[in-house]
Amino acid sequence: MQNKPCLLLFLVLILSCFIAQILGNKQSQALARLYKSKLKEGAGIDTSQFEAILHANGAKIHPQEGLKEKDRIDSLPGQPHVNFSQYGGYVTVDKEAGRALFYYFVEAEKAKDSSRLLLWLNGGPGCSSLGYGAMLELGPFRIHSDGKTLYRNRFSWNYAANVLFLESPAGVGFSYSNKTSDYGTSGDSRTAADNYVFLLNWLERFPEYKDREFYISGESYAGHYVPQLAHTILYHNQRANKTIINLKGILIGNAVINDETDSRGMYDYLASHALISDQTANKINKYCDFSPNATKQPKECSDAADAASKDIYYIDIYNIYASSCLSSNLTAKPKKASIFEFDPCSEYYAYGYLNRPDVQQALHANVTKLTHDWEPCSDVITNWGDSPSTVLPLIKEFLANDVRVWIFSGDIDGRVPVTSTKYSIEKLNLPVKTEWHAWFLGGEVGGYTQVHEGELTFATVREAGHQVPSYQPARGLSLIKHFLDDTPLPDTTRYT
Amino acid sequence: MQNKPCLLLFLVLILSCFIAQILGNKQSQALARLYKSKLKEGAGIDTSQFEAILHANGAKIHPQEGLKEKDRIDSLPGQPHVNFSQYGGYVTVDKEAGRALFYYFVEAEKAKDSSRLLLWLNGGPGCSSLGYGAMLELGPFRIHSDGKTLYRNRFSWNYAANVLFLESPAGVGFSYSNKTSDYGTSGDSRTAADNYVFLLNWLERFPEYKDREFYISGESYAGHYVPQLAHTILYHNQRANKTIINLKGILIGNAVINDETDSRGMYDYLASHALISDQTANKINKYCDFSPNATKQPKECSDAADAASKDIYYIDIYNIYASSCLSSNLTAKPKKASIFEFDPCSEYYAYGYLNRPDVQQALHANVTKLTHDWEPCSDVITNWGDSPSTVLPLIKEFLANDVRVWIFSGDIDGRVPVTSTKYSIEKLNLPVKTEWHAWFLGGEVGGYTQVHEGELTFATVREAGHQVPSYQPARGLSLIKHFLDDTPLPDTTRYT
Repeated sequence: MQNKPCLLLFLVLILSCFIAQILGNKQSQALARLYKSKLKEGAGIDTSQFEAILHANGAKIHPQEGLKEKDRIDSLPGQPHVNFSQYGGYVTVDKEAGRALFYYFVEAEKAKDSSRLLLWLNGGPGCSSLGYGAMLELGPFRIHSDGKTLYRNRFSWNYAANVLFLESPAGVGFSYSNKTSDYGTSGDSRTAADNYVFLLNWLERFPEYKDREFYISGESYAGHYVPQLAHTILYHNQRANKTIINLKGILIGNAVINDETDSRGMYDYLASHALISDQTANKINKYCDFSPNATKQPKECSDAADAASKDIYYIDIYNIYASSCLSSNLTAKPKKASIFEFDPCSEYYAYGYLNRPDVQQALHANVTKLTHDWEPCSDVITNWGDSPSTVLPLIKEFLANDVRVWIFSGDIDGRVPVTSTKYSIEKLNLPVKTEWHAWFLGGEVGGYTQVHEGELTFATVREAGHQVPSYQPARGLSLIKHFLDDTPLPDTTRYT
Repeated sequence: MQNKPCLLLFLVLILSCFIAQILGNKQSQALARLYKSKLKEGAGIDTSQFEAILHANGAKIHPQEGLKEKDRIDSLPGQPHVNFSQYGGYVTVDKEAGRALFYYFVEAEKAKDSSRLLLWLNGGPGCSSLGYGAMLELGPFRIHSDGKTLYRNRFSWNYAANVLFLESPAGVGFSYSNKTSDYGTSGDSRTAADNYVFLLNWLERFPEYKDREFYISGESYAGHYVPQLAHTILYHNQRANKTIINLKGILIGNAVINDETDSRGMYDYLASHALISDQTANKINKYCDFSPNATKQPKECSDAADAASKDIYYIDIYNIYASSCLSSNLTAKPKKASIFEFDPCSEYYAYGYLNRPDVQQALHANVTKLTHDWEPCSDVITNWGDSPSTVLPLIKEFLANDVRVWIFSGDIDGRVPVTSTKYSIEKLNLPVKTEWHAWFLGGEVGGYTQVHEGELTFATVREAGHQVPSYQPARGLSLIKHFLDDTPLPDTTRYT
């Protein structure tokens, strides 16, 4: 593997810094900080192709007897009554280093014994699947503005599967390493290896899920995590010549998958959505080289990227039409909450809730008393060592190996927008099997979809930002149901 | 003037027909029907440049004594109390034909004596400024779902000016001609001439407004009406060598202004917003010739346009993220209404309200007992004779004559989208005076703006559909205030 400076990240850096300052959106802040630290070292990142880690093998499975019941969550503070079980706890992935990953597991509302197992991963890198995925997006509860009570999400994905949320890698959320130098040596490869070891051990702890159909989903930088974990699973299944983990499919949304098209698509999106000027867009097209081989961008490119950053400084680039969060304070009395209207201050409620000692105790989290708060995105991960410029070869591998692939896109996300994803999929050069058409939910257009040969489904989610299940919970649930059932998204207005 | 077939309209036709069927949106239905009838006759439309009509001169002014007080509206049925005066009535524009235009006039909330006079025109062609502009967009009231009671619009444009709504041309709303053959011979030129004669007579009826600063605003096909009326005013002022009407500026939104860029921009918008497939968009770019000289489109073009129409069939192209109106029925008990959330069924409430005899009596409307219902867009206008392919030369004329020009665009309209307007303005080749930047209202980004030399201001309105004041009433009011005050849109987040 070779180290190659990727100056494209300079643009990402500029962009992310601006956003972070104004919005306090931890997801972008984390990205900005990581890239910044990488640039400071001047080392660039390892952009060579991802390879599954050899040492992540069965030898790392530890005995898990009795741990499942110890992880059972009686009830989360402030939650309404539910009829399904929840679990929370740690799985050690490196005994020597004392590296342990925190998970939150929600069994299916119905037929948990026959339902599939679905892993959800948030991106960042460095952002929490507990804080975002579970508590703000697709989990069974959302957090009230008081930061201490919960309300039901009628569109929780545990209506479709048993859902496992994993805070990964160590340093994210409640996940930790006793060898703190680990935080400075994070990267895609070790994340995939740790996630794989986590899974092997978690399945040992929950053996009834061992042979269950297994699916991996995620958004944003999980566009790296999900395919890399899937690749690692396939690799070890093939190496062992047996099904160690019964992987059936992956689903990724607003996903970082191919740097060149991701960047070009982002600027095209900002221009066509009238957020940056045509002059700036023209300069970016003319002067910026987004190819993975580009080593230096001319000043004209960085000036134009700078102008673009200024233009989007005051909007939430993760949902270009969102209102701003005007106060980060919790409210003594919970504000009236609606699943359909996402509160732009929700991240602050999650921060408040997950840092409460009673909540941590109920979750079986923070057992080692971390020296830092739980954060939506990690403040302690200080470096990111490897990040290939593309995961498209992995996607091709899945299609060749009958692993179902669905790629979705909330169409009002400006960060990893629908144009980026369309350009990336085009790169795969797959013939179209089912032509572009609207898909429906409740008589309305839920988005558009196109199916490619080799069974790659692309689907947009209408009027959804970066966190699709936050902004369009009903459409998000419909999407995951059809993905898991392997049925096409409905092409008629009739209720299905 | 020469007649030139404009086959570009074929695309518009296909598109409009599809939309009309599903949405029952009268605005698009009207456009579709008009273009359809034109095509049937096989005559095309007169696309030569607009010229002001010579015969529209002072000789057509009729005595108006006492008519103002007769037009005073005591109170509209179901309205809340207000402190400003309203007027409604007819102005005859052609005595011989018995052609009379209906107006609704709302005096300013404050300082009516010093406030400016603002005319608002809806487009279509054939749509009502009373039904859309006054009752669904920028008027002082909106209509409840019972179709009989009204509630206040806190962002009514009469907080900024005395606002005059005109149903134009004859055949639209309550405006009529006793010579019904007039309905078959409508067109841009006669519309401008009639509107000019209307104004001369209306100012005779309301002489206190004669020397008042006068502004014309409108949306959609009023992108034709507004500049053509302004041009006619300028022409007659210059011809008479005196200020007959004190025209100071025009403001048009999501406006039809240049067929070539309007069409190209629309398909680019649909593609970049992931509503049509890239394959379809590529075919349109390759095979369709949107230039005014194109006489025939190849089959590949119409096939691609057809595919595009199918893709957008089930969404409201006038607000690509809007919910559908699921029931056209009025409700006995009014639904809870909010100025901030536009009800997609509002058009049906307007239809119900404006067809009530008590409402018509209060408005002094329908005095001749029309044989047809009041409709949001005309069913009786059967032909549209002339429609130049561009009004850009008129815009240039205004800039050269110190007539202020503001062009705005709600950025989630797919019909005359922001890309179209950007392309059209580019055609003017004006140097940039104030660079593209966000503008603010209430600490949030209200949209983006760029000012060109010669004092042409372009402004987007964030998250607004085709009818900007319906979807973003606060941003719309801010826009009109700054336009009238001739002050730049605020470039800081501070409250201004």
